[in-house]
Amino acid sequence: MEKETEKVMKMRHTLSHVMAAAVKQMYPEAKFGIGPAIENGFYYDIDFGSTKVTESDLNRIEKKMRGIISRKLPMARREVSREEALNWAIDEKQDLKKELIEELPEGETISFYDMGEVFSDLCKGPHVEDTGKCGPFKLIRVAGAYWRGDEKRQMLTRLYGVAFETEEELEEYLKRQEEAKARDHRKLGNSLDLFCFSDLVGAGLPLFSPRGTMLRDLMANYSLSLRKRAGFERVWTPHITKVDLYKASGHYAKFGDELFMVHSQVNGEEFALKPMNCPHHAQIFASRPRTYREMPVRYMEPTTDYRDEKTGELGGLSRVRSLTQDDSHVFCRKSQIKEEIQNLVAIVRELYSTVGMSKLRARLSYRNEEDKYLGDKKLWEMAQKQIKQAAIDNKLEYFEMEGEAAFYGPKIDFMAEDAIGREHQVATVQLDFVQPERFNLEFVNEKGEKERPVMIHHATLGSIERFLSVFIEHTGGWFPFWCAPEQVRVLSINDQISDYVSEITEVLSSVVLDKPLKYNELRFSVDASDDSLGKKIKRATEMKIPCILIVGPKDKEAGEVSIRLRDKEEKVKLKGLKKYLEKL
Amino acid sequence: MEKETEKVMKMRHTLSHVMAAAVKQMYPEAKFGIGPAIENGFYYDIDFGSTKVTESDLNRIEKKMRGIISRKLPMARREVSREEALNWAIDEKQDLKKELIEELPEGETISFYDMGEVFSDLCKGPHVEDTGKCGPFKLIRVAGAYWRGDEKRQMLTRLYGVAFETEEELEEYLKRQEEAKARDHRKLGNSLDLFCFSDLVGAGLPLFSPRGTMLRDLMANYSLSLRKRAGFERVWTPHITKVDLYKASGHYAKFGDELFMVHSQVNGEEFALKPMNCPHHAQIFASRPRTYREMPVRYMEPTTDYRDEKTGELGGLSRVRSLTQDDSHVFCRKSQIKEEIQNLVAIVRELYSTVGMSKLRARLSYRNEEDKYLGDKKLWEMAQKQIKQAAIDNKLEYFEMEGEAAFYGPKIDFMAEDAIGREHQVATVQLDFVQPERFNLEFVNEKGEKERPVMIHHATLGSIERFLSVFIEHTGGWFPFWCAPEQVRVLSINDQISDYVSEITEVLSSVVLDKPLKYNELRFSVDASDDSLGKKIKRATEMKIPCILIVGPKDKEAGEVSIRLRDKEEKVKLKGLKKYLEKL
Repeated sequence: MEKETEKVMKMRHTLSHVMAAAVKQMYPEAKFGIGPAIENGFYYDIDFGSTKVTESDLNRIEKKMRGIISRKLPMARREVSREEALNWAIDEKQDLKKELIEELPEGETISFYDMGEVFSDLCKGPHVEDTGKCGPFKLIRVAGAYWRGDEKRQMLTRLYGVAFETEEELEEYLKRQEEAKARDHRKLGNSLDLFCFSDLVGAGLPLFSPRGTMLRDLMANYSLSLRKRAGFERVWTPHITKVDLYKASGHYAKFGDELFMVHSQVNGEEFALKPMNCPHHAQIFASRPRTYREMPVRYMEPTTDYRDEKTGELGGLSRVRSLTQDDSHVFCRKSQIKEEIQNLVAIVRELYSTVGMSKLRARLSYRNEEDKYLGDKKLWEMAQKQIKQAAIDNKLEYFEMEGEAAFYGPKIDFMAEDAIGREHQVATVQLDFVQPERFNLEFVNEKGEKERPVMIHHATLGSIERFLSVFIEHTGGWFPFWCAPEQVRVLSINDQISDYVSEITEVLSSVVLDKPLKYNELRFSVDASDDSLGKKIKRATEMKIPCILIVGPKDKEAGEVSIRLRDKEEKVKLKGLKKYLEKL
Repeated sequence: MEKETEKVMKMRHTLSHVMAAAVKQMYPEAKFGIGPAIENGFYYDIDFGSTKVTESDLNRIEKKMRGIISRKLPMARREVSREEALNWAIDEKQDLKKELIEELPEGETISFYDMGEVFSDLCKGPHVEDTGKCGPFKLIRVAGAYWRGDEKRQMLTRLYGVAFETEEELEEYLKRQEEAKARDHRKLGNSLDLFCFSDLVGAGLPLFSPRGTMLRDLMANYSLSLRKRAGFERVWTPHITKVDLYKASGHYAKFGDELFMVHSQVNGEEFALKPMNCPHHAQIFASRPRTYREMPVRYMEPTTDYRDEKTGELGGLSRVRSLTQDDSHVFCRKSQIKEEIQNLVAIVRELYSTVGMSKLRARLSYRNEEDKYLGDKKLWEMAQKQIKQAAIDNKLEYFEMEGEAAFYGPKIDFMAEDAIGREHQVATVQLDFVQPERFNLEFVNEKGEKERPVMIHHATLGSIERFLSVFIEHTGGWFPFWCAPEQVRVLSINDQISDYVSEITEVLSSVVLDKPLKYNELRFSVDASDDSLGKKIKRATEMKIPCILIVGPKDKEAGEVSIRLRDKEEKVKLKGLKKYLEKL
């Protein structure tokens, strides 16, 4: 994301005060919580009492705000004593502000911002000089928000606005929002019948119907096929483990209270649902003696991890409790780090280029001089150099961040840009000098000595669910031909030509795509219903089938099919159909 | 299993007394627990105090037993009062027997069996007339067993014997045991590097290394490919759910206390690990309106279920806590039941024939006149007829069991015989008239009315782990060529021919098998180490690689490879190698 300038953040902050001032005039009983500037805009949490404020009220509030802005009211800072502040809150019946003031540490400077004589608010600032300098904005949304983020406190109404320095930026943002809305993966997930949720199963636990499962499987298989080519082998590990595993790995001390705990009612045994797979994979590596001849050992596993995300944060596939990772771990010699990283970076490039998100940025996270980093410092330095070299050799746009590494090793995080210019964190390559130590992993080298391997964590898609949330919005549901759950639909104009339709489906059954995923059998259906052709086309288009074959008596006569792709129509001879589809 | 006759059970029971008598003579302090006849033999649980009795003592005990048997001592039943019985136990210092006597219900007839004057035991009988009628036997094993099966009571020593009516049966049994021991899947799982366990992960939670994962995936993919052909589509569901799902399905009331419970430490939410997948699949069916046009809807999912098996029952893959099912569910109209069952039975026949276990028996479980069965009785009768017809049409050996159906519908269970004559319960096809009712599943029929579907549960492999435990022992680790984790190993006689080896591996890389599983790329490796050919062959044979290619300078000259299969050796021209392997 673009770095927000201080100027625009001031504008947004002042706008939240302007919004509060407008609300105060329209709803004198309103009690105010907090109203910060945020990325792209601002919000204010407000207690409207029994009055219901909805998105239909935003226009009126916005109008009132524009009046206040046009008056160019000065934003004046004023410091007050704690007593003054409290008296103000009591006089104004601002219970929420009172609570905030009471919690300020003793001795802290307390400041108010006065907007001319129209509105005063407890606030640290900063603000623009007067309301006239607020710049273009728009109120966009009303949502519920618990006071102090606490489910046990009252629900407030959060009014959201967006604001930028220029009209162009605002318009571009709003346009992008419109585009994003049309591409919302939750909406498309439903209309394209990809996945669903069930109240009986629970929030954050999506169930994938056949079309969504096809998409999942194709993406996962493609991702794993690239690693198979690079020498990775599949392993399988269970979803639960004794917590001893995480005590040994060191995860328990750090993340123990975030684990989903599993309890046996039969004998009281305790397990945890795995939130990651590295310790499991380390157990397989450790299950028998290893020699230098078999290094590197490369495991991959598409498997589901469970993370205890808060219910409020769950929505669609962006954040789920059941996240399936296309996870992998390399166990290699120090001398092999370079090549392994190069391979993984190349795989990331290839995959994201295939899915049409070739604009990648890489964040290289290094250690700094703090003590918190474990493992040999020289090893760190060597690895960091190799990470950088991999970025350069793969012609990646990259930036380096000192002090952003994990305590166990340096890493590369990849950010991919989608079709409407949003950037998403996707793949990661992480070195790990610590787990091999903690699990006492070793192999025998050429001299017959025991040597410790290095681990490299990598997921190309990351969480498949999260990747799909990005990919569905990136494509707007118009998936590339090779991975569309239903690639071809045959629409027959009437039932006089069912023999010809059979000839066509016989051809379709013989089509097997080889790129980017091998052995990809064509997925097609026939709509031979009594409905009109128009209705059939509408239905197929709504399902975003990339290739529609329309077949009527004339096509039969001519030995052709009429093909309708998203962006063009053409006639193809039946005998050329197989080749045509294989090249789509 | 063969039905055990009453006669042989009497013999075995008497043998347990004979064993106790021998033990008593050799270890006068021994205290006796219980000593029943069991399948194939008998055992006695004995408290030897501080004396350690091991398998090396069995020969001496057996010898003593043969002495007692040769004396043809009569087995005489004698009824006694509770007081007499208790006095005996106290006099003889038989604390365990005393406890048993004290727990006998008031008024119960208490009997002893006297073996001549040599040994008396509290016993209900029955027994053979005298010890001479015991028949052939052998003591085979010593194990630990908690008194009364209670982990909190003392550990007793259990002496096991086997016994049959004839020497031939005994010998056959012992031979089969020897064979089974050599094929023990736990041993082969380790030596063939298929799977491992980790103390840090826990009992009953196997981790599959690359070779084992390959085998798992191949079997699962093959199984699912047969169903794909029959119109099944893959779905994906999470491994946890709110228990609400099982309350709605009715499972909670029946099996609620067997669930692994999952607990969120963040907000206290409760989930369960899924022990089956039907309710999840029903949620996908229910996620949107359905019409008769799309019936039957057929879902399949290879997914891992979790069942809380007792630690003591866990060993290898036969019984695990993480069981992966190749599960599927059909939602169909009543009129479609017949065809769906036929399809599934045909799939079971095909799969077990492919894996060399074509000797199948089917148990058809019907309702009886009891009230416990839910759903329309006419529907039951129709379904039972169709189940039987499917068995007949598929030329299955079958037997019918009235009163053995689940409460929700009739079913077929399949038993397969392995290479050493043991029978294993494998696949199942179960009708379900109840879950569609409980989840209110429906579709709109031709008349625009709502109609309720029937569900059919099916797994072809069942639990993949359990299937593998059977399959590994069935094959003794010599897997069929198509599913061997490593199919071909190239052994080069010296490094003068590395260019020729490259030519060979190029051919191997181009081999893709199409039967029984499509797109099955050849898995091979090259052993180009400095070791002697003999050592290389030994290593490859130990790993039970089905096809070994031996390549030396002469082979290069002749443009050939020497092929060593398990049962034959032959020379094949390089240009014929691809075809040769594709036909293996």
